[in-house]
Amino acid sequence: MFAIVYITTSGVEESEKIGEILVRERLAGCVNIIPSIKSFYWWDDEIEEDEESILIVKTIEENVKEIIKRVKALHSYENPCIIHLPIKGGSEDYLKWLLGEIR
Amino acid sequence: MFAIVYITTSGVEESEKIGEILVRERLAGCVNIIPSIKSFYWWDDEIEEDEESILIVKTIEENVKEIIKRVKALHSYENPCIIHLPIKGGSEDYLKWLLGEIR
Amino acid sequence: MFAIVYITTSGVEESEKIGEILVRERLAGCVNIIPSIKSFYWWDDEIEEDEESILIVKTIEENVKEIIKRVKALHSYENPCIIHLPIKGGSEDYLKWLLGEIR
Repeated sequence: MFAIVYITTSGVEESEKIGEILVRERLAGCVNIIPSIKSFYWWDDEIEEDEESILIVKTIEENVKEIIKRVKALHSYENPCIIHLPIKGGSEDYLKWLLGEIR
Repeated sequence: MFAIVYITTSGVEESEKIGEILVRERLAGCVNIIPSIKSFYWWDDEIEEDEESILIVKTIEENVKEIIKRVKALHSYENPCIIHLPIKGGSEDYLKWLLGEIR
Repeated sequence: MFAIVYITTSGVEESEKIGEILVRERLAGCVNIIPSIKSFYWWDDEIEEDEESILIVKTIEENVKEIIKRVKALHSYENPCIIHLPIKGGSEDYLKWLLGEIR
């Protein structure tokens, strides 16, 4: 039913840009942004160390596909990290509110 | 068996207040607090941009309902974000320790 | 198929040390580090308040056991928090890339 979509971006501005659009277009009810993180990953056979930001998107499972499509269109990376984490439950009042904010 | 409860609060002080109580009352074995995040969400037909904090609570599934009730009683919001994320496994030594700290 | 391993460490240096090794040894394709968090937990019958860091490791389920073993060998704690969170899906391009970076 409900889902978290975990995205990394190039920085807090990009997280804000994408997060705000996902809420404005009601693909998500709410987003949380962790402004500044560090990442390590392989790129062209070398380990890259990068400054990034995390965008945590709270939505329903039915919207995950559309969110992936929308984020890929908006994102500055060619192949951004977009991961779907399952939500098992929570405060019924909150989840009811979340559902009401999503189209 | 084990669970993460993901909560957003008005700021690091509120995360510390609620987190410390959940540990003191042994509803959780450990909490992690991400002090400062940004959030976007709909409120009264406008998109709100807010400074918040994330409280990550490590516990057992049997305690999730009680934690939701306790957090709603303690929280400054009327309808706070309280989400249950499933834990699939992990270090057996750590999960054994976690279980030993919870009542 | 895919998994997140959520680890807390004594600080950003330790998260960087362990994260870089997990990527270098191709146990993980990518790691994200939240540099500075606060934690509360019971220790010797008292509630400890500590400064820590979160290391988020993106990998495949088959590697979780080996990652737990490797982290325990590298970590400064005797019994570190190492938790396996399920990934339910995500961007197919990203997950394909992740798989390609892991041995």
